[in-house]
Amino acid sequence: MLKKVLIANRGEIAVRIIQACKELKIKTVAIFSEVDRNSLHVMLADEAYCIGPPPSKDSYLNIENILHIATLTKVDAIHPGYGFLAENAEFASICKKCNITFIGPSASSIRKMGVKDIARKTMKEAGVPITPGSSGIVESYEEAVNIADAIGFPVILKATAGGGGKGIRVVHDGKSLKSELEITQQEAATVFGNPGVYIEKFIEDFRHIEIQILADTYGNTIHLGERDCTIQRRMQKLIEETPSPVVTEELRKRMGESAVQAAKAVHYVGAGTVEFIFDHSTNRFYFMEMNTRIQVEHPITEMVTGIDLVKEQLRIASGLELEINQEDILIDGWSIECRINAEDPTNHFLPSPGKIHQFIVPGGFGVRVDSAVFSGYTVQPFYDSLIAKLIVHGKDREDAILKMKRALDHFTIEGIQTTIPFFKNLLRDEVFLDGIFNTSFLDEFYATEE
Amino acid sequence: MLKKVLIANRGEIAVRIIQACKELKIKTVAIFSEVDRNSLHVMLADEAYCIGPPPSKDSYLNIENILHIATLTKVDAIHPGYGFLAENAEFASICKKCNITFIGPSASSIRKMGVKDIARKTMKEAGVPITPGSSGIVESYEEAVNIADAIGFPVILKATAGGGGKGIRVVHDGKSLKSELEITQQEAATVFGNPGVYIEKFIEDFRHIEIQILADTYGNTIHLGERDCTIQRRMQKLIEETPSPVVTEELRKRMGESAVQAAKAVHYVGAGTVEFIFDHSTNRFYFMEMNTRIQVEHPITEMVTGIDLVKEQLRIASGLELEINQEDILIDGWSIECRINAEDPTNHFLPSPGKIHQFIVPGGFGVRVDSAVFSGYTVQPFYDSLIAKLIVHGKDREDAILKMKRALDHFTIEGIQTTIPFFKNLLRDEVFLDGIFNTSFLDEFYATEE
Repeated sequence: MLKKVLIANRGEIAVRIIQACKELKIKTVAIFSEVDRNSLHVMLADEAYCIGPPPSKDSYLNIENILHIATLTKVDAIHPGYGFLAENAEFASICKKCNITFIGPSASSIRKMGVKDIARKTMKEAGVPITPGSSGIVESYEEAVNIADAIGFPVILKATAGGGGKGIRVVHDGKSLKSELEITQQEAATVFGNPGVYIEKFIEDFRHIEIQILADTYGNTIHLGERDCTIQRRMQKLIEETPSPVVTEELRKRMGESAVQAAKAVHYVGAGTVEFIFDHSTNRFYFMEMNTRIQVEHPITEMVTGIDLVKEQLRIASGLELEINQEDILIDGWSIECRINAEDPTNHFLPSPGKIHQFIVPGGFGVRVDSAVFSGYTVQPFYDSLIAKLIVHGKDREDAILKMKRALDHFTIEGIQTTIPFFKNLLRDEVFLDGIFNTSFLDEFYATEE
Repeated sequence: MLKKVLIANRGEIAVRIIQACKELKIKTVAIFSEVDRNSLHVMLADEAYCIGPPPSKDSYLNIENILHIATLTKVDAIHPGYGFLAENAEFASICKKCNITFIGPSASSIRKMGVKDIARKTMKEAGVPITPGSSGIVESYEEAVNIADAIGFPVILKATAGGGGKGIRVVHDGKSLKSELEITQQEAATVFGNPGVYIEKFIEDFRHIEIQILADTYGNTIHLGERDCTIQRRMQKLIEETPSPVVTEELRKRMGESAVQAAKAVHYVGAGTVEFIFDHSTNRFYFMEMNTRIQVEHPITEMVTGIDLVKEQLRIASGLELEINQEDILIDGWSIECRINAEDPTNHFLPSPGKIHQFIVPGGFGVRVDSAVFSGYTVQPFYDSLIAKLIVHGKDREDAILKMKRALDHFTIEGIQTTIPFFKNLLRDEVFLDGIFNTSFLDEFYATEE
């Protein structure tokens, strides 16, 4: 087992990783920016070092400083969490050169999934369903026209170096294709340093369903069922649940197998998530992208499977074989996560940093809170606005929803605006309660609210 | 299902009951003493009413005021929690007369278990093992001598109206028997209003093992395995775990069956706990007493069985049949509870009331906190000193202990003294880690510490 790990992150995920390390008797090294000096992850780690001022490029993204501390503190491994350096193939590669284990897949796996048109090709070859579209970068406007005519409008133009909802543009008809293609290519060159753009059939309204994967260094790859993250605002997830209200046992098996194929196709090692577009009307699903890291919403999978995903990451990185087979994975009950963000839901979810005067977290049976804030903590404007993940586990969907409602009623955060009131409204919505909706849900929800 | 319930309690158990009610869509009425006005149970309930000043006899024990509010608010039922009125047969009986469901067993069941010499007789007749001793109240010194000689010293004298470690006296030899008997009888008459005393063989050092029972109104009675509460200070439990490190599957079955017999013998309905003395050296167990209410340590049973005991109480009181059979009860993993009390472990566990300046609760996978306090809350001197229950669930004992350790490291309470430092020491103790100890554990623990 690893002896000492540096956590190259902050906030709740840094705390989460420290917890898993402590339960495996692994020593921990925290890093922090100047404004994060009094943070919980700093208090909880065995050692903690300042790595520079905000913004992140001068601290949490400063690879040189991070590796300097890793070397000084003689850690065996670095856990990147999510965001920051988690999907940075260059960083994974440098860690390897420094003889430090990067807790995640190889640089090669990250690259193969990170370059989107290559990922599409790899998936196609591996037999994973992809949306109709170009087989790679479109080389010319004429090629784009031919493809768009063949698959039919609307189509979506995607920067191959983009991801997470960035660098994409929807085209509804042939008239605007030429100009949109040129704009997307120019933007991609500017923002991502790579002008490559490819074309896919645009599925307007779908369910976002993702499959959790675990793969060890011995070639064992299993999936842990799905998470339904259909409810998003501008491609940002707000609430996630597992199982999905629309996934049958048969569909879970098919999607799970596809996700395992996807992971195997890039020789994936560690915890990862394969995201799919699911078209409920046709019961078909298509590969969207793979997140080659732990995800924010990983706890709901832990609640229904009983498997600690971060501990599994640490075990796999220690070179241990998975102790669980696919047949051991049982989905028990229902879990929901609400992302409690320091944002004002009554004002376009604008960030609401500032000092928290009171912070009362709900507890009791089946309620889990992953958070790094407390009464008197000041939410900084430099980082993402997630301040707590409220996770419940009930025996079925209705039970989980009732549990979430009572937990939200209990959760008290004073001094800043949060997404709690939004979730209280959402959990009363008939469409949400029915469980049958697509990614357009929030637009319709707000239309009804007004 | 019940529509509206009055919770005749305060603190964490009042919050716990409100949570269960909300998850079953039952409306809640809280009561509070003048000093509890700003308490969490008051904030969380649908309605809340002041029932008088501290001490408890003028508020939480004021039956007239409580029933007045119950009638005014038109509740169907009263949940007494633990302590206060929970084992008051008179109160259960008055509720019935007022057509209000008392959430607990009948007054008759409470009485049969509350009068200790009658409980012993009932258990003996039902085939539940009891310690050797008198068959009822000892009528004379001569009778006491005969019994003591027959079962051998040491013996224990117990007030039949006592309980919970009160009204008992150990006698080590025949010389002091006469005087001790007289003193115990006099004390019993003064404290409990009943001079009746009986004699039992005194088992000096044992494991306190208790079995959780659920019984519905249709005669279905099941047990949910054991809780090991051996570690006590002056008969007060401090830490509990399930399963017990010394209970085998075979012993669990035997104790479980005895506990079910005990419950059936008094026509028990609801959630209850049968406490046993377990002599590890002989592998024999003896009935100690039955707690005819929900217990402080109930959450650890919930963690390993997945069954919500307070919801089951509410379902049973609603006249519903148990949905679970004995065969459905599976013990999954290991759970431990630490009682975080406002007490100073470095000074004889003296109460430490006062204002809490900072209260940071641990979270994450497998950690549960049941509490009614928060930053800025003032712990009152009038009530028991329990301010939070820290509960963990791991895959085995070692995993649960590591989880408890990391949770205790995280738990921050400033402004008052608490039992947290005591538990941090305890969880490093070799004897505790081995799991083999008896009720004398803490004496030996402190001897080693010095």
